[in-house]
Amino acid sequence: MITLYHCMSARSFRPLWMLEELGEPYELNMLPFPPRGFDKGYLAINPLGTVPAIVDGEVRMTESAAICQYLAARAGSSMNVEPHETDYPAYLNFLHFGEATLTFPQTLILRYTHFETGERRSPQVADDYTKWFLARLRTLEPRLEQHAFLAQDRFTAADISVGYALLLAVHLGLDARFTLAVARYWERLRERGGFRQALASQERAALAQGISTVPAPDLRFNR
Amino acid sequence: MITLYHCMSARSFRPLWMLEELGEPYELNMLPFPPRGFDKGYLAINPLGTVPAIVDGEVRMTESAAICQYLAARAGSSMNVEPHETDYPAYLNFLHFGEATLTFPQTLILRYTHFETGERRSPQVADDYTKWFLARLRTLEPRLEQHAFLAQDRFTAADISVGYALLLAVHLGLDARFTLAVARYWERLRERGGFRQALASQERAALAQGISTVPAPDLRFNR
Repeated sequence: MITLYHCMSARSFRPLWMLEELGEPYELNMLPFPPRGFDKGYLAINPLGTVPAIVDGEVRMTESAAICQYLAARAGSSMNVEPHETDYPAYLNFLHFGEATLTFPQTLILRYTHFETGERRSPQVADDYTKWFLARLRTLEPRLEQHAFLAQDRFTAADISVGYALLLAVHLGLDARFTLAVARYWERLRERGGFRQALASQERAALAQGISTVPAPDLRFNR
Repeated sequence: MITLYHCMSARSFRPLWMLEELGEPYELNMLPFPPRGFDKGYLAINPLGTVPAIVDGEVRMTESAAICQYLAARAGSSMNVEPHETDYPAYLNFLHFGEATLTFPQTLILRYTHFETGERRSPQVADDYTKWFLARLRTLEPRLEQHAFLAQDRFTAADISVGYALLLAVHLGLDARFTLAVARYWERLRERGGFRQALASQERAALAQGISTVPAPDLRFNR
């Protein structure tokens, strides 16, 4: 059985969502945020000290979008796009785009407005990357005006990669600035059974394991 | 024929390197850096305004590591790792790791020490992400002590993804801090014919197209 190491609503929500969409059994191991700060033993599982990490027999992975592609391929699911399909290039592109182009800038906003304190905060950096994020997000508009999903006209791992960036945008209060097609796409994603089950699953596991149910991106409210 | 839009030694070096390793014909379109600042017409090709962009018939892609996987799969090359192979999970993981975990932090160092000016510079952010980069890089050590390459004991697109991050580290003056196995790996990569041909190819194309041959990461020396 697959074990997933996860912090509430952090990037590791991507593989959790994928596991729920696949109906794959898994063990969910919740960690307080940031994982490397609270649980030194975790470094033996993932030397990066980040989430996600998955353990699947001999397999160890730590990159959330890569894990989604792996899980979809492993299950032979239609949530993977195969090399012979027309949208294989778009599929690979959006898997990377969701993390490298959309999510990373958002983590800078979080870090320099919320997680850092006092003089180490940097509103300028947060502002630089808010602009970056919104400009990059707008490039989805033409495709989403034509298609319900990002690749091959069906829900795939690429939608989970980009969809998580939209969830994080909600936590950052940026969803009011979604353009129309993006806002409608986000509505389609968050109404999915797999998405809602993933939210319920992390809540249930956090309560059972004595971990705060405050989403990692919202920890600012605790400071 | 594939067209690649590229700035000297920027992220788009990944697909250039891959094309040279594959021996695939291509048209190399050099742009001054930053591309969106100098050439507004480029936004019609890539609305993100970033490099790389490739055009391959109907195919458009903009994420450098995704393009490498696509090109390797398209050519049926051993530089792709197939889902039935043992290291398929490691392959996917390192493709993403090279960009999201290693390269993005380095672009923050560049931005806030070199490209920004005056009060907009932020030595703290540069320092935060130098530490981040070096700590993440060290996690490669155990694998590289055991294996010549990152996945399936052969040179693959994953090595190009991570290898570009090492090239960028050289431009940032961080290579003196490579650990032993990483330094030896970097030596193996930069001695490859494909790598050297890619360096020569961009130099030749820049001269022919009247673009400065100063690598984009080194533009600080021009300020």
